Amino acid sequence: MTISMYQASVPVFIRQLTNLAAILKKAEEHAEAKKIDPSVFINARLAPDMYALARQVQIASDGAKGCAARLAGIEVPSHPDTETTFAELQARIAKTVDFLKGIKPDQIDGSEERTVTLKMRNGDVSFRGQPYLLNFVLPNLYFHYTTVYAILRHNGVEIGKMDYLGGI
Amino acid sequence: MTISMYQASVPVFIRQLTNLAAILKKAEEHAEAKKIDPSVFINARLAPDMYALARQVQIASDGAKGCAARLAGIEVPSHPDTETTFAELQARIAKTVDFLKGIKPDQIDGSEERTVTLKMRNGDVSFRGQPYLLNFVLPNLYFHYTTVYAILRHNGVEIGKMDYLGGI
Repeated sequence: MTISMYQASVPVFIRQLTNLAAILKKAEEHAEAKKIDPSVFINARLAPDMYALARQVQIASDGAKGCAARLAGIEVPSHPDTETTFAELQARIAKTVDFLKGIKPDQIDGSEERTVTLKMRNGDVSFRGQPYLLNFVLPNLYFHYTTVYAILRHNGVEIGKMDYLGGI
Repeated sequence: MTISMYQASVPVFIRQLTNLAAILKKAEEHAEAKKIDPSVFINARLAPDMYALARQVQIASDGAKGCAARLAGIEVPSHPDTETTFAELQARIAKTVDFLKGIKPDQIDGSEERTVTLKMRNGDVSFRGQPYLLNFVLPNLYFHYTTVYAILRHNGVEIGKMDYLGGI
């Protein structure tokens, strides 16, 4: 097997979203065991002007489905950002993973030079497929996933690096 | 240009270590402006049983140089973990980037199936090159880089997502 745009994107997204779901499951169990209102974790943030946990999960989902759809040249599925419970966040992740599982390697392979245009705050930004994936999507995905992990660790949830990596 | 093991590793490491150096520079300037002892930031952590900032930087450096050396089949350079100041952390990152810049694409390209063996706490673990890079090295690198960012944001340093991404 050689590395390909598909291999470097969709299976990585599925793996990390699955790990994210597993640490959220542990956070939910922790809240239950300690009799802490789950919304304390759902709304927790590391700084007043950083996003809370729920929003971090939504952005991780958006990043993964947006990248896969854009590289494949299909419409980005819209998931309204309404989740306020662990169960709803799990459903959001599951829906995203289902979408990713429906993408075939040949839809994404060869997209290194494909032009991807994003609407950003300051106007449209265009990327080539490869730098879009390597320098924008993956750093962003890991940013939001790690920030969820950091919020939970900061708030006492017992998770570790092996949960983050999903085993080795 | 097609995606390759080199493209997915060394330039990504250099880019993210360069971004890491830039946010540490902003943290140093913030400490100076606010007359806060820099060691407050160097020793800050998000939870009592998470590593402090300096160690997060050291592990990010180790992950990048270790991966590049192992995929290239050359000796991993040893950098003793002695840094306790911003200047020393900058030097550690610069030394790591210098090493990475000396690695040529043809040393790494084609390493998808190369066997990489790591000494872990519980014994040796062997990977194939591609899952080693995609499922272990990159998640770890972004984990430690994002954790540095999170520590600094949690402690009031004014950095944002564009600093993390190094622009788009």
